[in-house]
Amino acid sequence: MLLLPVSSATDTWLLRKVLSATGDPPIRLAIRDGASVCPPKVRPVGTILFQNRAALLKTVLQPEIGFGDGYAEGAIDVEGDLTALLEAAYRRWPGSSAWGWLTRLKSNCVERFQANSPRRSRSNVHHHYDLTTDFYKQWLDRQLLYTCAYFPTPEASLEEAQIAKMDHVCRKLQLQPGETVAEAGCGWGALALHMAKHYGARVKAFNLSHEQIVYARQQARQQELADRVEFIEDDYRNISGRFDVFASIGMLEHVGIQRYAELGKVIHRTLGKSGRGILHFIGRNFPAPFSPWIRKRIFPGAYAPSLREATTVLEPWDFAVTDVENLRLHYAKTLEHWLERFERSVSQTSAMFDARFVRAWRLYLAGSLVAFRVGTLQLFQMTFAGPDCRIPWTRAHLYEVPEPQEQGPKWMHAMS
Amino acid sequence: MLLLPVSSATDTWLLRKVLSATGDPPIRLAIRDGASVCPPKVRPVGTILFQNRAALLKTVLQPEIGFGDGYAEGAIDVEGDLTALLEAAYRRWPGSSAWGWLTRLKSNCVERFQANSPRRSRSNVHHHYDLTTDFYKQWLDRQLLYTCAYFPTPEASLEEAQIAKMDHVCRKLQLQPGETVAEAGCGWGALALHMAKHYGARVKAFNLSHEQIVYARQQARQQELADRVEFIEDDYRNISGRFDVFASIGMLEHVGIQRYAELGKVIHRTLGKSGRGILHFIGRNFPAPFSPWIRKRIFPGAYAPSLREATTVLEPWDFAVTDVENLRLHYAKTLEHWLERFERSVSQTSAMFDARFVRAWRLYLAGSLVAFRVGTLQLFQMTFAGPDCRIPWTRAHLYEVPEPQEQGPKWMHAMS
Repeated sequence: MLLLPVSSATDTWLLRKVLSATGDPPIRLAIRDGASVCPPKVRPVGTILFQNRAALLKTVLQPEIGFGDGYAEGAIDVEGDLTALLEAAYRRWPGSSAWGWLTRLKSNCVERFQANSPRRSRSNVHHHYDLTTDFYKQWLDRQLLYTCAYFPTPEASLEEAQIAKMDHVCRKLQLQPGETVAEAGCGWGALALHMAKHYGARVKAFNLSHEQIVYARQQARQQELADRVEFIEDDYRNISGRFDVFASIGMLEHVGIQRYAELGKVIHRTLGKSGRGILHFIGRNFPAPFSPWIRKRIFPGAYAPSLREATTVLEPWDFAVTDVENLRLHYAKTLEHWLERFERSVSQTSAMFDARFVRAWRLYLAGSLVAFRVGTLQLFQMTFAGPDCRIPWTRAHLYEVPEPQEQGPKWMHAMS
Repeated sequence: MLLLPVSSATDTWLLRKVLSATGDPPIRLAIRDGASVCPPKVRPVGTILFQNRAALLKTVLQPEIGFGDGYAEGAIDVEGDLTALLEAAYRRWPGSSAWGWLTRLKSNCVERFQANSPRRSRSNVHHHYDLTTDFYKQWLDRQLLYTCAYFPTPEASLEEAQIAKMDHVCRKLQLQPGETVAEAGCGWGALALHMAKHYGARVKAFNLSHEQIVYARQQARQQELADRVEFIEDDYRNISGRFDVFASIGMLEHVGIQRYAELGKVIHRTLGKSGRGILHFIGRNFPAPFSPWIRKRIFPGAYAPSLREATTVLEPWDFAVTDVENLRLHYAKTLEHWLERFERSVSQTSAMFDARFVRAWRLYLAGSLVAFRVGTLQLFQMTFAGPDCRIPWTRAHLYEVPEPQEQGPKWMHAMS
C-alpha cells in the first residue's frame, strides 16, 4: 500500500510523524517489540503501544477512527494512566484558530449530510440510550442522570451534585407550584419527577428511548407522581399545547444544527410570549464536529454547537437570553465520578458486553472527561424568556442558603 | 404635497392611520384646536399633541425622525407622563417575528454603509461624549458612570448601584492585586480607578473623548493613582502589549458590527491564551438597528447587537464564554434615576443648551428607559477566558456577603 520499504526505520519515521502531527505531546509511541519514539527531554506520561504495524498504519490513515477502534479492539494499548495520557495529547492538540476554521469548514460539509429526521433521531437514540438500563445503573447516580451534574463544591458526592443540578435548573427557572413544564429529552425521568415532587410542577416529558420511558413511568408510579408527570415516548417535535416552561437537558446535542430552526418553532409554539425555558447542552468555543470516532461508535448524529450557533434556536422568536453559565469543570468532575464507577464495575459490564464494548466506553468516558477539563468542550446552561415573561432581578437567589429548618442539602430549595 | 383635500376629516383619517400602524396603543392623538382620535373603550395614558398639521405629516412620512425632531422642536407635545406614554406605545409596537426579520434586513443594508473607521469613531464619540462634563455631572452619579448600574436591590441608590456594578465586574473577572487591565472605552475613568484602588490592578484605559480623558487624568492625580492607572486618548485598535484582563463597558455599541472581527483580533492580541475579559453592552433579542432618530441625533454609528452577533467577536479566537448575565431591568432602573435627576436639573441644563437639546435628551432618556423596561433592548455582561485561563468553579463568589469588619457596602469585595 505504501511505497516505503517496511522496516523498523520506516516505523520510527511514521511514529515521529504521528507525534509531531499531534503537537509533540509528552507521550511515548511504540510498536510492540519494535520501534519507539518520544519527544526529547520530557518524561512521558505514558505509552501508546501499537500491537502491530497494521494498527499504526490505520491510525496514520484515519487518525481518530484508527486510534479509537484500535484501542477498542486491543490492537492499541495504553501503558500508564489513560486519562493523563489523553490530557497530555489534548493539551498539545493543534487548537489554533487556523485549525478552528479548518474544522469549521469540515463540520459544515459533514453536517449538511446528517440532518436528523424523526426517523433518524429514533435510530440514533436507540443506538446509545436503549442499551440496557442495568448497564447505566452500574456507574450513574441512583436517579440515573446522564448529564452534567452541579457540584456546589468539588468535594460534593455525585448523588448530591445531581440533586443540586436539578435544583439549580429549577431555581434558574423560578419554578412555581402548579406550573406546567414540557421537557424535551427526559432520560430516565429524574428531573421531571424532581420538578413535580419538590416544586409542585406538572410535567409532560418526551423521550424517544423506549427503555428509558418504561423505567421513568415505573418510577412515577412508585413515587406516586403519575398524576403530575406524564412520560411520552415521542419526538420533541410532537410536543403540543401550551406550557409555562420548556426544559431540555442534554438534548440539543442530538438535535443537529440543521434542525435548530424547527426546535425554535417548537419552543415558541409551546411557550408563546409569556413562557420561559432552559437549554442545557454540550457546546464549543467555535464550530467543530465531534470526532469521527465518537460520531461513528458512540453518538451518531450528535453535534455540539458553539454559543453563537445555539442562540440561533431562539433569535427568530424574540426570546431574551437571560443567563448563560458555563459548567465545563462540572462536567469534567461528573465524568471523573462516572469513569471511576465504570472501572469499579468492569466485571459486571464484561458479563453483559464484550471486551471491545468495555474498552470503547472507557475511551469515550476518559476522552470526554479530558475534553471538558482542557476546554475542547464546554457545557452551557442557557435560560431564556418570552417578551411578556417576568425575569429575576438578580441571580443572588440561586446562591442563597436556605433556613436550617429546611430539609435536603443546603443549596436545595424545596417547595413541597 | 398630498392629493387628499386638507380638512379635519383628512386629519382624523391620518391620525387613525398613525394609531393603527403603531398597534393601537392606549394613547390619544390630537392636532391642536383640531381633530383627535383614541382607540375605543380604553382610558388613554396621555395625549400626543401635534401643534399643527405639518408636524403630523412629518411623522407620517418619517415616523421616528418626524416624531423625535417634532418633539424636540416643540412642534409635538406630550400631555401626561412621557415615560408612561412611551411605555404604552412600546408595548404595542409591532414586535412580531415578521417585523424582526424585516428590521434585520433593513439593519443589514443600513449598517453596511456605516463602518466605523478610526476617524469616524472619533467624530461619533465627539458628538456625544465631548458635551461638557458639567452637563453630565448634573444627572449622573458622583463618579460619572454613564453605563448600566447594578442594583443589589431595587431600593439601592444610584451611587451604591454604580459602585456595586464596578465590584460586580471586578468579581466576575476575579481581579487580583498586581494584575494588568486594558480598558477599551473608559468614560470618565471610574472603573479604571476603582480597579486600581480596591483591587490593586494596574490599568491602561483608552478613550477617544478628549474631555473625558482630561477629567479622568485629573481624578487619577487627585486620588494618587496616576502611577497605577494610565489614561490614553486613543482608539481601542491601538492598544498594544499583553494584559491579564480586557474590559470594555458600554463600548461595543459604538464599535459597529463590521468591526467585530477587528475587535476580536485586538482582544486576542492583548490577552493571548491565558487572559480573560468582559464585554458589557446594550444588546437585543434579534438584530435590528437603533431608531433612525437615535442614530441621527443621539448616537451616530451606534449598533446594539444580538447575543449571536456579539459572540462573533470571540468565536474565531478559541475564547470560552464563561458567563452571560442579562441586566436589562437594571438599565431601566438606572435610567429612572438619570431621568429623575435630569428633570431636577433642567434649569441648569437650560442655561447651557437650548430648549431643543433639553427636549431631545428627555425623549432619549425616557425612550431608553422604556426600551429596557419592556425588553426592546437588553443589557448583556459577557465574560470570557482564553484556553489557558483558570475559570471560577461556580458563581457563588459573586453573591457572598463579606465579613462585617470589611468596609463599604455589604456586596463590596474590597481588597485594598
